[in-house]
Amino acid sequence: MKASQFLISTLKEAPADAEVVSHQLMMRAGMVKKLGAGIYSWMPMGLRVVRKIEAIVREEMNRAGAVEMLMPVIQPAEVWQETGRWSKMGPELMRVKDRHDRDYIVQPTSEEVVTDVARQELRSYKQLPRNLYHIQTKFRDERRPRFGVMRSREFIMKDAYSFDRDPASAKASYATMAKAYRAIFDRFGLRYRAVAADSGAIGGDLSEEFQVIAATGEDAIIYCPDSDYAANIEKAEALAPQGSRPAATQPMQKVPTPGKSTCADVAQLLGIPLQRTVKSLVLATDQLNEAGEIVKSQLWLLLLRGDHDMNEIKVGKVPGLDAGFRFATNAEIVDHFGTPPGYLGPIGLKKPLNVVADREVAVMADWVCGANEEGFHTTGVNWGRDLPEPFAVADLRNVVEGDLSPDGKGKLAIERGIEVGHVFYLGTKYSKPMNATFLDESGKPQLMEMGCYGIGITRLPAAAIEQNNDDRGIIWPDAIAPFTIAVCPIGMDRSAEVKAAAEKLHDDLVAAGVDVILDDRGERPGAMFADWELIGVPHRIVVSDRGLKEGQLEYQHRRDAAATKVPVAEASAFLRGRVQA
Amino acid sequence: MKASQFLISTLKEAPADAEVVSHQLMMRAGMVKKLGAGIYSWMPMGLRVVRKIEAIVREEMNRAGAVEMLMPVIQPAEVWQETGRWSKMGPELMRVKDRHDRDYIVQPTSEEVVTDVARQELRSYKQLPRNLYHIQTKFRDERRPRFGVMRSREFIMKDAYSFDRDPASAKASYATMAKAYRAIFDRFGLRYRAVAADSGAIGGDLSEEFQVIAATGEDAIIYCPDSDYAANIEKAEALAPQGSRPAATQPMQKVPTPGKSTCADVAQLLGIPLQRTVKSLVLATDQLNEAGEIVKSQLWLLLLRGDHDMNEIKVGKVPGLDAGFRFATNAEIVDHFGTPPGYLGPIGLKKPLNVVADREVAVMADWVCGANEEGFHTTGVNWGRDLPEPFAVADLRNVVEGDLSPDGKGKLAIERGIEVGHVFYLGTKYSKPMNATFLDESGKPQLMEMGCYGIGITRLPAAAIEQNNDDRGIIWPDAIAPFTIAVCPIGMDRSAEVKAAAEKLHDDLVAAGVDVILDDRGERPGAMFADWELIGVPHRIVVSDRGLKEGQLEYQHRRDAAATKVPVAEASAFLRGRVQA
Repeated sequence: MKASQFLISTLKEAPADAEVVSHQLMMRAGMVKKLGAGIYSWMPMGLRVVRKIEAIVREEMNRAGAVEMLMPVIQPAEVWQETGRWSKMGPELMRVKDRHDRDYIVQPTSEEVVTDVARQELRSYKQLPRNLYHIQTKFRDERRPRFGVMRSREFIMKDAYSFDRDPASAKASYATMAKAYRAIFDRFGLRYRAVAADSGAIGGDLSEEFQVIAATGEDAIIYCPDSDYAANIEKAEALAPQGSRPAATQPMQKVPTPGKSTCADVAQLLGIPLQRTVKSLVLATDQLNEAGEIVKSQLWLLLLRGDHDMNEIKVGKVPGLDAGFRFATNAEIVDHFGTPPGYLGPIGLKKPLNVVADREVAVMADWVCGANEEGFHTTGVNWGRDLPEPFAVADLRNVVEGDLSPDGKGKLAIERGIEVGHVFYLGTKYSKPMNATFLDESGKPQLMEMGCYGIGITRLPAAAIEQNNDDRGIIWPDAIAPFTIAVCPIGMDRSAEVKAAAEKLHDDLVAAGVDVILDDRGERPGAMFADWELIGVPHRIVVSDRGLKEGQLEYQHRRDAAATKVPVAEASAFLRGRVQA
Repeated sequence: MKASQFLISTLKEAPADAEVVSHQLMMRAGMVKKLGAGIYSWMPMGLRVVRKIEAIVREEMNRAGAVEMLMPVIQPAEVWQETGRWSKMGPELMRVKDRHDRDYIVQPTSEEVVTDVARQELRSYKQLPRNLYHIQTKFRDERRPRFGVMRSREFIMKDAYSFDRDPASAKASYATMAKAYRAIFDRFGLRYRAVAADSGAIGGDLSEEFQVIAATGEDAIIYCPDSDYAANIEKAEALAPQGSRPAATQPMQKVPTPGKSTCADVAQLLGIPLQRTVKSLVLATDQLNEAGEIVKSQLWLLLLRGDHDMNEIKVGKVPGLDAGFRFATNAEIVDHFGTPPGYLGPIGLKKPLNVVADREVAVMADWVCGANEEGFHTTGVNWGRDLPEPFAVADLRNVVEGDLSPDGKGKLAIERGIEVGHVFYLGTKYSKPMNATFLDESGKPQLMEMGCYGIGITRLPAAAIEQNNDDRGIIWPDAIAPFTIAVCPIGMDRSAEVKAAAEKLHDDLVAAGVDVILDDRGERPGAMFADWELIGVPHRIVVSDRGLKEGQLEYQHRRDAAATKVPVAEASAFLRGRVQA
């Protein structure tokens, strides 16, 4: 490819609304162009990256036995009503009416449509297992689209769906996909982790996120440096502390803490470690009548150590809270505790409620909590002596750096990541409401077992950039770079030798199947180098009159501090040896 | 590819709503699956055809210097309001609101978005000419979607847009695309014609449709068998008849024609050729005030020979009618002619109107028309003697078989076609309202000259099938077949020799880059052959025990009446020699 025949459009400054480095660099490098909030055109330079990602994904999906199809962007409401997602999904689901006033959605994923295909096409156990996927435009009407293509509204996703005859086979299909994903992400050339994720109501451990590691990532990745344990923050288990609860050493005592409504403030006032304080969170569960009205509510008091954060996923698994919960209203809190939030605690409650202690709190002694009176806390609180043992003890919190690894092989560390893939065992979540059955050996209809497997195709370039950039611009891994090599001639318009050498090298590399661009735009060296450094082409070779006199070209990898001289005659072979793809 | 790892799903019967053969065969061959009215999933077998079409289009577009990008499916209303298409386009334009109640459309084409990109990116004459294209999902909310993917609502289109500094350069860009389109359609292996089409208000001859020839096509293609003239029915010019108007030989006479309100009925009653009758069509043009209300209307009487059909595009070019016209209302007709339609004519009118005669009518003598009195016609009518010469003479009609070719090289013939491509010179139609300018050499802003170039990617498989099918199924050209060769082993499960020979041939062909499928499903020969004939794979090779004993395989092209024996050792080379791709 010659640069003069391509569309290169770099900017000195990123637009003001580009908050993160990947968005800034993609705009500056001319990879994408904003059309509206969360809606981008992929410019030629960016589209090349997308196409390379798609090609890798397609190859590995096919190799893993998945079959490509293409499902529509605009989907009739009917199938979405069958699974209930039509009403369950909120405004993120873009709804549209046609000229006859019939309802449609703009697909955010395709579980319903693929299940509809499967229930028609896969009628016998002989046709299973089967994995169908497509790479297609999706839309999610995000409340606050941001970070460019990282959280855009329109995007391209690869979504695959497996259909199996039973859970054992479905789990094998899941494992095949999890392995294919590792092959895909290995080929991208990005540092990533496959982290265990919560599998929701399905249970089991068959949900993994593929996270590209980046300090700027939105997600916390929990991992053990001494083992292969990795999970997301929702999933990572906080083990019960080792050892048993110490004996009480302090009397219980009410102390004035005027204006100190947070654990941190109270700890500071009392001169004690934050780890000695306990925070009270009040939840409610509701009993509804047939009309959906609340008939009766039950309050729950959750106790967490002052320095810990509640994990809603884990709380949602506590028996009694697992059918859904909400935070209690201010009125409910005052009614039960006699005081508004800030000074709450489990001592001397006016009305009964269920006290659930985090595993950590359950083994604490001499702790501090609110006194259920504004401006007062209680110190020296001890289980059994001052209040009954908790109704339940459970893992309620997010893990923190230094917690024990659930696999017992060391301590947990935390890094940041960007989720770009997800493999998920669905069970019969979709096949059941849609009655997607096949006939087994005995001719009896059985529900299909499903899995779903997504890769955020257009999110990946942004994640790759968040991981690989410097103050000059992007640094692409070879496999997904828009071009692998930039041939940069200096003074091509003045020197026939430079022109000939640059074009020969370009042609040789093209013939060898290397994705090379020859910068024949006639830019000055500084501007030309700055462009390719911003765009992030990993390999650069400079052709100059001075170099040619010595029979040399100058090679520099985007990460190299300085250039390496390469004899002209060896340049093509040298470069081919450097390229990893 | 092995069939057991693919999704093959053939049907004995097409669904009842499949009216045309391509729709029937695509459904029966498992190429597409209906999700809703005019909305289809592309099943794996069909998607392979689409991808091959896309690849050919992409290669030739790139070769012609166009650069690929990707514009969004969901586009903000704002750019569509700039060109006025937001309000001008009717319910075919699918409109959607986001969660913030902002207006968007689901793209039917991308003129607005690409012009928005161009006005930002192409700022200097140095960056022109430029051609940008994308291959993307489109939506048109057809009133009556039908014929499967032939007239679906969601479809994939390749749309390219050229930007040039002046009309001369734009015309060169147009010519480059017209040439690229010929290369593309040649590669598809379909019989097609590039036909001149009307270029609307732009004028000139820079609009061509690419029509796949098929007896079932919706469009009439006018061509001259003795020259390269070809045009669509809207465009094809009806030349003025040779020779001058004959002298009058009959007196004008009012004759009773009770109940005979059509030219055909009148000709039959009077025992004269239909070619002697003249039909009267009444149009109106309106003068509007600033509020858009009709201030004054002018009626027009169009005269066409009884056997000819009016061509609205041509009528719209008659001076005075070129700013828009409508058919006159019944009330207007009665007011002017004193009688409702059926017995109208240009003789003895109560009020003045503009009479426009078709070229053919202008040279007729002794003709028959309505007498402006119910149940009566007038015979022996002659220009000049019985009525004034017409206000205007123009080409108002569709050509018919046997008309003179406009290039003077023979007579016109008509065949049917399916439009699958269109190249069009736009001028400043979009750049002007959107103020898409570049700076010329003197630093002055100039409007860009544009062209647009579409190919109906997902319509092409249907058009190809309409052209290439028989009672057993589809017959794909090699270049766009889902698989090029089907290797059909007989009794693969019983015979190790058959299995080994079939797999070796498959592997050899794969290694040679041939798109082959090995049918390892274990179907009986009859069912297996019927499947591949229905699916339309062009080349079939049968591996059987009986054949192997003689050292032979049996080859049959989908169009061949019988099989040819091929020595086993030569089979791979033989097949590679047969494949055209």
